Amino acid sequence: MMKQLRVEADHPYNVHIGHQVFSLFTKDYHGLLSSADRIVVVADAQVAKLHLEYLLGYLREFDVRVLTIPAGEQAKSVETFMDCHTFLLSEGCSRKSLLLAFGGGATGDVAGFVASTFMRGIPYIQLPTTILAHDSAVGGKTAINHKLGKNMIGTFYQPEAVLYDIQLLRTLPADEVRSGMAEVVKHAFISNESWLLELLEIDELGTMADGEIMAHLEKGIAVKAAIVEEDEFESGVRKYLNFGHTLAHALEGHFGYGRITHGEAVALGMAYALHLSNHARLNEFLVWCRKNSYPLEKLQEVSFEEILPFMKKDKKSSEGALSFVLLEKTGTPFLETIEEKRAEAAYLELCSMLGGV
Amino acid sequence: MMKQLRVEADHPYNVHIGHQVFSLFTKDYHGLLSSADRIVVVADAQVAKLHLEYLLGYLREFDVRVLTIPAGEQAKSVETFMDCHTFLLSEGCSRKSLLLAFGGGATGDVAGFVASTFMRGIPYIQLPTTILAHDSAVGGKTAINHKLGKNMIGTFYQPEAVLYDIQLLRTLPADEVRSGMAEVVKHAFISNESWLLELLEIDELGTMADGEIMAHLEKGIAVKAAIVEEDEFESGVRKYLNFGHTLAHALEGHFGYGRITHGEAVALGMAYALHLSNHARLNEFLVWCRKNSYPLEKLQEVSFEEILPFMKKDKKSSEGALSFVLLEKTGTPFLETIEEKRAEAAYLELCSMLGGV
Repeated sequence: MMKQLRVEADHPYNVHIGHQVFSLFTKDYHGLLSSADRIVVVADAQVAKLHLEYLLGYLREFDVRVLTIPAGEQAKSVETFMDCHTFLLSEGCSRKSLLLAFGGGATGDVAGFVASTFMRGIPYIQLPTTILAHDSAVGGKTAINHKLGKNMIGTFYQPEAVLYDIQLLRTLPADEVRSGMAEVVKHAFISNESWLLELLEIDELGTMADGEIMAHLEKGIAVKAAIVEEDEFESGVRKYLNFGHTLAHALEGHFGYGRITHGEAVALGMAYALHLSNHARLNEFLVWCRKNSYPLEKLQEVSFEEILPFMKKDKKSSEGALSFVLLEKTGTPFLETIEEKRAEAAYLELCSMLGGV
Repeated sequence: MMKQLRVEADHPYNVHIGHQVFSLFTKDYHGLLSSADRIVVVADAQVAKLHLEYLLGYLREFDVRVLTIPAGEQAKSVETFMDCHTFLLSEGCSRKSLLLAFGGGATGDVAGFVASTFMRGIPYIQLPTTILAHDSAVGGKTAINHKLGKNMIGTFYQPEAVLYDIQLLRTLPADEVRSGMAEVVKHAFISNESWLLELLEIDELGTMADGEIMAHLEKGIAVKAAIVEEDEFESGVRKYLNFGHTLAHALEGHFGYGRITHGEAVALGMAYALHLSNHARLNEFLVWCRKNSYPLEKLQEVSFEEILPFMKKDKKSSEGALSFVLLEKTGTPFLETIEEKRAEAAYLELCSMLGGV
């Protein structure tokens, strides 16, 4: 079972989702791989431990070099970025080399940034291994973090293809499933009420079947792709994808990357944005968060004053104003600047609500 | 006196050359500057010492922040790259901020790379202060160096405009004039015999009048722009701009950046490429190099064996073959792969020729 979506970016490419998608290395992408003078796999260390052998099994006919990088968000440092360049140069890579990014969103972000800047750009293929990566695998955003902010350094750069092997998701830890499903729910919130209701009925994320995950991923990717196609360089509607993200980035900044997963932070950020939007499904969403063990209590651990400076650093903001994506209703997002006082009051209200959920 | 050329890149822009071009900040570019939420000048330390006050005189009506970076090629490090990002973030810059790159080609390269990667891209204006920068100011190539190779990390990213104030060139040291004029001569070699002959008549580069420099810069930029327009991402004819550069990059790598200027290395590289091309004007060119104090003797200080590994790392090369831009005749460049033995023989012949010039 394999599905295929086309992303009509500046540089169009296909996203393949399903079982045995890596078999496409010797089918659709055989020309690309066999014409490369070097093939380098940049792999998340944790993912490599579990699945590298599986991946290399599909690459047997090619001469492949592997660089493992730190697992997860830790890889998005300038040090790892430079380590990748050093590896590519040491291995004699050229502009005709091909990079395969094997891991979650963080691996894709840093490896994509490396691909976009190695000799001013070489082709790369994304091989996402998390649910969360369905989000970053479409849109061509690459990035590393700066100590003063997440994703502050990066490029817009499209992959040649995205091969999403559903089987690899079975080994994901519970917090990674939670993290990924939060972005799926985000895509539902900004696009489609009936799909949203379907998602809010899930009582235990860990019990989803392959087919169910695949269907949600496909919908999520389609929503993302449609928006990205309309606005590749984030000057307009693409900002709507940041629903929940103003507070999420601030929470990640405050707690330190890794202490809260991205999607968990997005879930909390969506709760806040739903409250600012007076959205009818806030309570329902909070109940869903509780059932699925999203760390709502973390909101109560941090004051508005602590979180405020981080929210002001958001890329959507300018001149220190607070900028949010809100919902008129499910499927109808809009951009809004909110005054500090109103933002603070809403934050306190949301925190007090949590006790009752 | 002010001239204007249009570069029809993916993102088109104008190059202005002449006297008082910075007056355009309050004319053609007033909208761009006044709509920016921050304006940051990234200035070469040496250039800032000499000309920052002059520049700021034209920016009086704007709130401008200045970051000085190491002079020349030293700035093209990942450390300076990160320092720039830290400065932009600390100053509260956003996607609506504007960067002005004030200095030679190196400053433009690193500042352009910063602009292309800060929050995935902000606008920037190039303010070149060397003759050499006429080359890098067109084409949108940005870069920093890696210890394993020059310009290995970078992007293709176009500026909003290039403002070339001829007056600033008067303070250039002699080796900088030499360096810049080598690239001017390169543009003549790959495009136009009569212009080339004009240039080869110059006995003392230091005595050129403003008007003369301006005319040569304009021609050089026009050649570069025409080629870049045809091939923005260097998949075809743009490679011809690398005439002289295979050996030049190798010499820079061997002697260490800063021990030989880029243009001086290009002059030596052109001599080598002319010999490989059996070009009729090799001797005339060597004489011109001697008269104008290009360091031809440096070729005799380094053996072919020492230089070979650096030439193999050239971005034009793949699979370790030696790749050169040669000339069928002046104005007719082509790409050629040369065997090591032939390359070595030609190198030794050239070195032995130098004694007679």
